[in-house]
Amino acid sequence: MKPSQQISSGKDKPLFTPGPLTTSVTVKQAMLRDLGSRDFEFMTAIKELRHELLSIGGVSQSGGWEAVPLQGSGTYAIEAVLTCAIPPDGGKWLLLVNGAYGERMAKICTRYRIAHTVLKFGEDTPVDVAQTDAAIRADPGITAVAVVHCETTTGIMNPMEAIGSVVKKHGKAFFIDSMSAFGGVEFKLESSGADFLVSSANKCIEGVPGFSFALCRRDALLATKGWSRTLVLDLVDQWEGLEKSGQFRFTPPTHAILAFRQALHELAEEGGVAGRAARYRCNYEVILHGMRELGFKEYLKPEVQGHIITCFRYPTDLNFHFETFYSKINDKGHVIYPGKLSNADCFRIGNIGRLFENDMKALLAAIKETLAEMGVKLR
Amino acid sequence: MKPSQQISSGKDKPLFTPGPLTTSVTVKQAMLRDLGSRDFEFMTAIKELRHELLSIGGVSQSGGWEAVPLQGSGTYAIEAVLTCAIPPDGGKWLLLVNGAYGERMAKICTRYRIAHTVLKFGEDTPVDVAQTDAAIRADPGITAVAVVHCETTTGIMNPMEAIGSVVKKHGKAFFIDSMSAFGGVEFKLESSGADFLVSSANKCIEGVPGFSFALCRRDALLATKGWSRTLVLDLVDQWEGLEKSGQFRFTPPTHAILAFRQALHELAEEGGVAGRAARYRCNYEVILHGMRELGFKEYLKPEVQGHIITCFRYPTDLNFHFETFYSKINDKGHVIYPGKLSNADCFRIGNIGRLFENDMKALLAAIKETLAEMGVKLR
Repeated sequence: MKPSQQISSGKDKPLFTPGPLTTSVTVKQAMLRDLGSRDFEFMTAIKELRHELLSIGGVSQSGGWEAVPLQGSGTYAIEAVLTCAIPPDGGKWLLLVNGAYGERMAKICTRYRIAHTVLKFGEDTPVDVAQTDAAIRADPGITAVAVVHCETTTGIMNPMEAIGSVVKKHGKAFFIDSMSAFGGVEFKLESSGADFLVSSANKCIEGVPGFSFALCRRDALLATKGWSRTLVLDLVDQWEGLEKSGQFRFTPPTHAILAFRQALHELAEEGGVAGRAARYRCNYEVILHGMRELGFKEYLKPEVQGHIITCFRYPTDLNFHFETFYSKINDKGHVIYPGKLSNADCFRIGNIGRLFENDMKALLAAIKETLAEMGVKLR
Repeated sequence: MKPSQQISSGKDKPLFTPGPLTTSVTVKQAMLRDLGSRDFEFMTAIKELRHELLSIGGVSQSGGWEAVPLQGSGTYAIEAVLTCAIPPDGGKWLLLVNGAYGERMAKICTRYRIAHTVLKFGEDTPVDVAQTDAAIRADPGITAVAVVHCETTTGIMNPMEAIGSVVKKHGKAFFIDSMSAFGGVEFKLESSGADFLVSSANKCIEGVPGFSFALCRRDALLATKGWSRTLVLDLVDQWEGLEKSGQFRFTPPTHAILAFRQALHELAEEGGVAGRAARYRCNYEVILHGMRELGFKEYLKPEVQGHIITCFRYPTDLNFHFETFYSKINDKGHVIYPGKLSNADCFRIGNIGRLFENDMKALLAAIKETLAEMGVKLR
């Protein structure tokens, strides 16, 4: 059976969200174990995981890269890089912001009183490379630049290579929050110019939540030794522990890591990032065309829209109430996602996780039925 | 079948460690789900979990207490309390230290440049109440006192109520790291004088690793609003999110939380903390007497030894090499734990997790066999 002919199994509702996502039965079954954190099999799993993550990014340890898994959700890894990659006695982030996840970076820097400048764009506008260039020129205090790869607020894709090339031209450190894109979007770490990239176990690699990870250019990582403001989020310390003993410094989420090992196998079986991206792109296109056919309008212009998650505007019909719409679709066995925009009423449909064309079609059917029940007309 | 007649099931080796622990098959099976983080069933699970955790500590929300689960390992919750409960413009921790986990608290405070004084005791000596009293008197700058309940370094039990009563007499905040004791040792939060207590999902409640939790006197928690040095470890912010929306602020470890819900049911079925403590005490006694019979000597005096984990001295016989001993026991299907003492060569045997009398006896048989194979004589 080809993946596109499958339908997600199990009794739970498929999750059309940015995560936690629907995972395969076999990924979940990998958690039916209790391995000790010093167990040889478990330490081998960590080693494989670190190797595979780099390989997904097109890099390797021998090529000067390091993968550092870290307990906690994706935000923990973001906070780790933001608070490790700036020296305590100087340095400044330039944060390129076009959505809620970019805003969160600013919130983290403020919390730690880490110097930062926010360069803000509209939520429907990709980060602009010329403005980024100008902002770096304008402030010699800037030592590092951070951007979100796919802003889950809207699903917009920011141009990593173009931004990275400007950041590198100025010799600054470059941090990519690729939370919802890594593993599901074709992407090469080297050509992105990134020094640090973070993502999470429960995104496009389709593991379960419990840890995040940072992929780091080794030189850039080691340069931050002693800079971390925290103990638990200290990436160099975590890396040193992994290198020295093969273990996490503190109790690892053993079950989530075993699930992730299985998820990595399934990613490889699907043809790696290219194969997975093709399935997600198909999911995206089925939803986009189906929703357009129903009369919905997407928030972003197609040329800046990624295939991770799509943001749709509320219908203008006064019969439309999102909470009712959401509940009725939920009752029919599908979980969609609310919006998070500052300036428009939208909801979101995620295309990632163990979802196939048939899942997308089933969701469209439920949406059509719900609109009829609610008496909502879209044109 | 009574618990004491069971033997841990499944193909994995029983873990005689301080965690991650052996869990029941049913706890692991609870993870064969994918629930969305906004799902009603999932939010209900969080609500129940928060309620049950307080109930295990003998307190309630209506009685002025709050349970705040937090993504990450146990150390994350410790770092959270240490960096939330001291105002940014003053305040000082008194850290009562008699092992590696107490030392780690000092390391965390140093990292954040949070003022602290360490009152240090021998690793074989419980924290002394009179010296604690004197230390608080001697430094009016101290605003809060922290101590480890059961120091897993040795398994020693520190006298919570006596310490708490001194701390409260001086009107200071009191923080108990009850990581390896909570749920497995009879204990009442109110009478301990604690303002904050932390533990982790994968300890005596027998869930899987992925999150930790803080139990907080609400007044004490709310008094720290705005004090957190971090975003991800901000307990008030996390609590406000839970109260407002029923959700974690950032992606929750959904599977670990479903496992924990099942683990809480199984704790109740076993007779709550009293029932669980009785099993652990039985495990402890079987190991202690069995090891003594083989000629091993425990590190601690019995009157200060808890029933969580026991520290045994290396035999003096020159044929004894711990690595060989560990591997041979491991090959026979049992996982013991190395020592962590600064001044004595020891190894540890944990009594917690889904382990029963028969597991302990099987371990003793493997140890006996290993000693014979290695030609180690103990008397």
